[in-house]
Amino acid sequence: MQKIVILPAMPRGIHSITRLVERELETILSTVESGILHVFLCHTSAAITINEDADPDVTLDMMDILDRIVPMHRQLYRHTAEGPDDMTSHALASLIGCSVTIPIQQGRMALGTWQGIHLCEFRHHARNRKLIATIHSIQ
Amino acid sequence: MQKIVILPAMPRGIHSITRLVERELETILSTVESGILHVFLCHTSAAITINEDADPDVTLDMMDILDRIVPMHRQLYRHTAEGPDDMTSHALASLIGCSVTIPIQQGRMALGTWQGIHLCEFRHHARNRKLIATIHSIQ
Amino acid sequence: MQKIVILPAMPRGIHSITRLVERELETILSTVESGILHVFLCHTSAAITINEDADPDVTLDMMDILDRIVPMHRQLYRHTAEGPDDMTSHALASLIGCSVTIPIQQGRMALGTWQGIHLCEFRHHARNRKLIATIHSIQ
Repeated sequence: MQKIVILPAMPRGIHSITRLVERELETILSTVESGILHVFLCHTSAAITINEDADPDVTLDMMDILDRIVPMHRQLYRHTAEGPDDMTSHALASLIGCSVTIPIQQGRMALGTWQGIHLCEFRHHARNRKLIATIHSIQ
Repeated sequence: MQKIVILPAMPRGIHSITRLVERELETILSTVESGILHVFLCHTSAAITINEDADPDVTLDMMDILDRIVPMHRQLYRHTAEGPDDMTSHALASLIGCSVTIPIQQGRMALGTWQGIHLCEFRHHARNRKLIATIHSIQ
Repeated sequence: MQKIVILPAMPRGIHSITRLVERELETILSTVESGILHVFLCHTSAAITINEDADPDVTLDMMDILDRIVPMHRQLYRHTAEGPDDMTSHALASLIGCSVTIPIQQGRMALGTWQGIHLCEFRHHARNRKLIATIHSIQ
């Protein structure tokens, strides 16, 4: 009831991972009538969130919005050893969060009509990212 | 141990739903000695959070603060099919989050003295909103 | 499987509490093969988050970033009875969040290499802060 999911390296930006997570967890989820799915991202320069999953423009707008909230101006930050996207990544990771918790109903994630899971990759040259999925059955 | 709660349509702004959630879950919670309550909002243009629940000014100030963080200027966004409050709603929903998780102690939510549950409605003309509450007993 | 942890009063800023939480929960966690740890902060003017836990500059930069996002200008807010850090504290608490949920593997928190738990103290003269830790075993 706990599974590690490795996400491939992705460019800086917001990416839907709904289908990938569904596929990886399909077998485990199908055995759960009711419960909760917790998906935890083991990193401090990326984030995981739930957002509108139909229009790809949302992911583009979202990254622009986050760049205005935490601008990539090197002179604003002390922690810049790994470049101008170093501290901004940690700040955005903390603002968005590193886990999502989703109800399970009848063997599937009970997401709303428009909801999907998004990986927010904040580094310009990131590698693979690791998720730990934990499934709690309540029956 | 899973219950759907329908919230009535509310105007754009932050609204305390503490009493409503307590009332809806009272019977289920009263059977749980220790555990966790997960409340999930099935939408991408509203959010759920825990905040100061005593002074109504907090909810007014909070909405102003969020409007400054993600300003409703149409020209900033690609995703505007449903109006100037379309993309701003998705962005704020993702920043605040679509679920809260609260400990249960002796059959009640173990909220701090000043804490309450707030629905953040980001659309000008929203309809009903749907919550899925999941209760995990650990005993 | 539920434990109250009292944090000592800390100055305004971001503080790593990873070691403190590990120490307080070591005995309970060691009995859990797989599961989830939920840590809930019972306050509305502080927050709890997961962030880079190696370089202390991250915590300094993070507080500066949050101060730019929700500036401490009294004239912006209605809710100022307890000073200029009153409403800003509530807003930041809601943006960052009052709980973290972490997978447990082989009796330990399964945090990523660089991840740690940070208390974000937003008040200038705060007192003790109370956490409620809940551990769910899934085996």
